[in-house]
Amino acid sequence: MTGIDRSDGFVGLPVTDPSPSERGDAARNRALLLDAARRLITERGTTSVTMDDVATAAGVGKGTLFRRFGSRSGLMIVLLDEDEKEQQHAFMFGPPPLGPGAPPIDRLIAYGHERLSFVWDHRALLSDAGRDPQTRFNAPSTLHRIHVRMLLASAGTTGDLDAQTDALLALLDAEYVTHQVTDLDRSLEQQVRGWEDVVHKLCGV
Amino acid sequence: MTGIDRSDGFVGLPVTDPSPSERGDAARNRALLLDAARRLITERGTTSVTMDDVATAAGVGKGTLFRRFGSRSGLMIVLLDEDEKEQQHAFMFGPPPLGPGAPPIDRLIAYGHERLSFVWDHRALLSDAGRDPQTRFNAPSTLHRIHVRMLLASAGTTGDLDAQTDALLALLDAEYVTHQVTDLDRSLEQQVRGWEDVVHKLCGV
Repeated sequence: MTGIDRSDGFVGLPVTDPSPSERGDAARNRALLLDAARRLITERGTTSVTMDDVATAAGVGKGTLFRRFGSRSGLMIVLLDEDEKEQQHAFMFGPPPLGPGAPPIDRLIAYGHERLSFVWDHRALLSDAGRDPQTRFNAPSTLHRIHVRMLLASAGTTGDLDAQTDALLALLDAEYVTHQVTDLDRSLEQQVRGWEDVVHKLCGV
Repeated sequence: MTGIDRSDGFVGLPVTDPSPSERGDAARNRALLLDAARRLITERGTTSVTMDDVATAAGVGKGTLFRRFGSRSGLMIVLLDEDEKEQQHAFMFGPPPLGPGAPPIDRLIAYGHERLSFVWDHRALLSDAGRDPQTRFNAPSTLHRIHVRMLLASAGTTGDLDAQTDALLALLDAEYVTHQVTDLDRSLEQQVRGWEDVVHKLCGV
């Protein structure tokens, strides 16, 4: 028995225990709705997908969609959050060179490469999240800072690791990346090479 | 006759030509109002200064203040703009090490030092300006990018200069600097040292 032992009698807020089939329906509807939303976003881009579209594509009532996610932005946050968790798992526990097992500089390069693609694919959602001053410098960006800082330290980087981490991570900011591509015609490939240059310099290569 | 040809007799909106003494009054009032606003902001911080305060401190009617600057944010933009111009002049044409005549790395260090102080002093105004996606990556930041990029190039920096410039300038972002000081207890002095570390690494020192 550990710290989350509930033998103190705490049983949480009183809830109506759903029957197994109700729980199964809810889980199935959730999966259908998220799959439909992902498919539509891939086809049309985030901004042109409405709640009506998602409900219709999932074959689920619009009421269920709103009950499940609260609002369009609630749905988008869940989608972003799931993808963020998947990517975090990949760079923390997945196969090298992104995950453990490769030299820290190789992991940093792989991280920049993966993250630039992720940021570009999720730019609309990330840009919304980043515009809120309360979340701009907080989780999940905290986890990215810790990861990049750890890799810089493992690579034997000298000097102020916080400043170097933040300078690097600025190159992965959603609005920055989007501005580079759409306003300056700087492709993701060019940005990956820019990331590599800065990584190599900070690591003294 | 083209769209911008004014030989069509267009003379703009009819205006009453001010007499020399009226123009003198206007210039004097403008200077009084800006001086008063600066003084109050230094004493109390930007957010606690009202238009009433400024008019009273300047000994000028509130109507004149609004006619002159349109709104509180209009007044703030003029103040920021004047200070930006003064600082730009200093790093482009002023004495070394900030201005021309010193080695590029010394100029970059001096620039970071001056700019961190400036950004901290003007954080409220800059943060407002930066939150607008239309201005975030535009002037006056364009001028700063050109300046830092030019100094990196003069220092013989190799690799992608754009990425390196942007990584460096991220350390001078108003919201970032404020977050470092107020949420993380990272003093301006620490941030200056962080800037120096990144500059030295990018320049291969």
